[in-house]
Amino acid sequence: MSSPLVVMKFGGSSVANADRIRRVARRIARERASGSQLVVVVSAMGDTTDELLALAAAITDDPDPRELDVLLATGEHQSATLVSMALHSIGAPAISLTGPQAGITTDGTYGKARIAGIDPRRVHAELAQGKVVIVAGFQGRSVKPLEHLDGDAPGASDVHAAEITTLGRGGSDTTAVALAAQLKADRCQIFTDVKGIYTADPRLVPDARQLPVIGYEEMMELAHQGAQVMNVRAVELGWVNDVVIEVLSSFEDAPGTEIREDPFVEQRNKVRGLAHDRNVAKVTLVAVPDQPGVARRVFDPLAASGITIDMIVQNVGHGGATDLSFTIPRVELAKAKRILEPLVRELGARELTTDSSVAKVSIVGAGIQNAPGYAARMFGTLADAGINIEMISTSEIRITTIIAEDRVEDAVRALHAQFALEVPEAAEAAAG
Amino acid sequence: MSSPLVVMKFGGSSVANADRIRRVARRIARERASGSQLVVVVSAMGDTTDELLALAAAITDDPDPRELDVLLATGEHQSATLVSMALHSIGAPAISLTGPQAGITTDGTYGKARIAGIDPRRVHAELAQGKVVIVAGFQGRSVKPLEHLDGDAPGASDVHAAEITTLGRGGSDTTAVALAAQLKADRCQIFTDVKGIYTADPRLVPDARQLPVIGYEEMMELAHQGAQVMNVRAVELGWVNDVVIEVLSSFEDAPGTEIREDPFVEQRNKVRGLAHDRNVAKVTLVAVPDQPGVARRVFDPLAASGITIDMIVQNVGHGGATDLSFTIPRVELAKAKRILEPLVRELGARELTTDSSVAKVSIVGAGIQNAPGYAARMFGTLADAGINIEMISTSEIRITTIIAEDRVEDAVRALHAQFALEVPEAAEAAAG
Repeated sequence: MSSPLVVMKFGGSSVANADRIRRVARRIARERASGSQLVVVVSAMGDTTDELLALAAAITDDPDPRELDVLLATGEHQSATLVSMALHSIGAPAISLTGPQAGITTDGTYGKARIAGIDPRRVHAELAQGKVVIVAGFQGRSVKPLEHLDGDAPGASDVHAAEITTLGRGGSDTTAVALAAQLKADRCQIFTDVKGIYTADPRLVPDARQLPVIGYEEMMELAHQGAQVMNVRAVELGWVNDVVIEVLSSFEDAPGTEIREDPFVEQRNKVRGLAHDRNVAKVTLVAVPDQPGVARRVFDPLAASGITIDMIVQNVGHGGATDLSFTIPRVELAKAKRILEPLVRELGARELTTDSSVAKVSIVGAGIQNAPGYAARMFGTLADAGINIEMISTSEIRITTIIAEDRVEDAVRALHAQFALEVPEAAEAAAG
Repeated sequence: MSSPLVVMKFGGSSVANADRIRRVARRIARERASGSQLVVVVSAMGDTTDELLALAAAITDDPDPRELDVLLATGEHQSATLVSMALHSIGAPAISLTGPQAGITTDGTYGKARIAGIDPRRVHAELAQGKVVIVAGFQGRSVKPLEHLDGDAPGASDVHAAEITTLGRGGSDTTAVALAAQLKADRCQIFTDVKGIYTADPRLVPDARQLPVIGYEEMMELAHQGAQVMNVRAVELGWVNDVVIEVLSSFEDAPGTEIREDPFVEQRNKVRGLAHDRNVAKVTLVAVPDQPGVARRVFDPLAASGITIDMIVQNVGHGGATDLSFTIPRVELAKAKRILEPLVRELGARELTTDSSVAKVSIVGAGIQNAPGYAARMFGTLADAGINIEMISTSEIRITTIIAEDRVEDAVRALHAQFALEVPEAAEAAAG
């Protein structure tokens, strides 16, 4: 029988300094001693990525995307080599591979590339040598051919032509899940600075409960609505490839949370968790003429500037005019105002108002849309706490409200109590 | 007529921070505006290499050489991308290439690889696009095949199998000269934090004179004996390939020093420059039996530990015993003592003495060995200054003495005056 293959991913806080890197190495060595073959994905050390971004910002406020990707990728090269050195020093054979060396190819979009495929030959060859393979996360090689290298020049897989691309924030999670899928790993473990996925942020809600298991779709909604433990695309990739993802602490030996096809999903309609997000600003165009094409004229230039629109609400018009509200990441507000202010007069709107002291609070649970009463209970709970709801949006498994930022903590605590999230579910208790 | 091709190399102090990187970019853009095609080689920013070494040392005192090379190579990746970004931001098209992307192959010796060849296709293709090509110095891709990747696996030039290797201290100079040779560049400029090559270190000798030109062989001796401006191997590579190397300041626009086949070499026998080196320790095995094989038993284990032996002096024996003295880099003294102490008794020597407060002072000039009187003048000058000579060694174009470290400054000044190095040579004056 062949030994099990495990993919382990360690985030930036887990490898933030030499002590932590040595601790991670000991954890890897213990797992290896138990007989597993290991592929380990690492993020850059601590704040390295932010420091490199600051370095680029000191040079220019509009860094070339290709160069920025090469710059940022060095963070993961460094942490990968250091983890490998730490393993060598305790007698565990190991080798670090860059994303391109590990055979990870991407669609070539600088700064937010998507993984296009994985050629696992080098990884397999190193595993066959008995080595722990440390892969630099967050990066890969573009498969787009370089047009000016045609003819005389080497192919895209040749080292001369290999262009490095990064996967964007949280990309190392995606690297780990993609490797687990390609290698048909027995386990995919995401080590982080929390113990797993909670019913709400434990810093806000003292009796927030760690979930033993959560479905892919619920996890994606929580991640998208502000839960920062897991990257949305990594969860999606796990879902598509049916990879069971285990989120657990790199600092203590304790059971984590499994993200998987939820075995209990048919047995209940229930709120599973809360998410909140403070990186939100609300924008309203007041009294816009209620005509076809207005929305496009507002959102096209925002999209062209790379501003992500989240919730959009447009009320029924009165007297030929309507209010158009939407939310964007708070850090993009200044840029959005520069784009929208000239539009107010062009569109014949009355005015542009913005509010950067709002936040999103969401409840997430498979099937809650089908079970009447959850929306009413949510809005009632907020009303009882004297919290005004400014916007609402819903999906199949989620209800999101926009409220004043300074009421986030009250809202999350009241909702956590209302839905009794601190109480383990019957199905979980029975399974456990 | 095609535009001239210039290779420019900027050292770590020239790109130590964002301001200096922007200044370097402006210098490059000026050169480009004058119509040249440019290949720019950069070192890592400031103390980056030392910081990365310290990071590795915090993990383990014996870092794996392959992993250390990948780690150190990130320093040049970073500076190359930042210089490229700075050029973009002032409207000059540019692209950074890693050593492997630039087609630089090495013999695969980690930590001190030698350049094996350069495949210039990518560099040519980028130059043809009108771009300034920024090459990360100090590194290349090993051409050694990875044995365990045979069969199923890709070839060595495939990105999966490409192993990065570094060229050792000063390796970026070598990268620049090798590229200039391969590309048949019209000029090869090494920008540094001094104005050129001087007759002696200007920090020690106020009237040290900048040389307009110096021969390859003299420059190699000066570099080997402690002049830190240029890397010895880079000079050697320039000599073999007949590349004229220009050393000049990155901080001011002023003529530098050309390292080339010296046109004046047949016209004189003269001291051209002085070099000194404080990173020296002297080791003496006192009263070693004067038998065959003793030297090998001393030097074999030192070489195996990677300790570079510099000068070796053994006097005529008396009564069957002799004193064997040699110098090593001062930082290696502790390691050397651990190796040699057990040998003292095995060899039947009387004792081991060491002195880490010595230094080397050398005079260098083509042909001085053939012209009698230079040695006598050097020793006489030191004697007049009351400086004791502890060891002497000579080459065709050099005389080196070991003296007490606290007399280095006196020695260098006295010798500079004795040989009137502040006075331009007649041939130079005529040529100028």
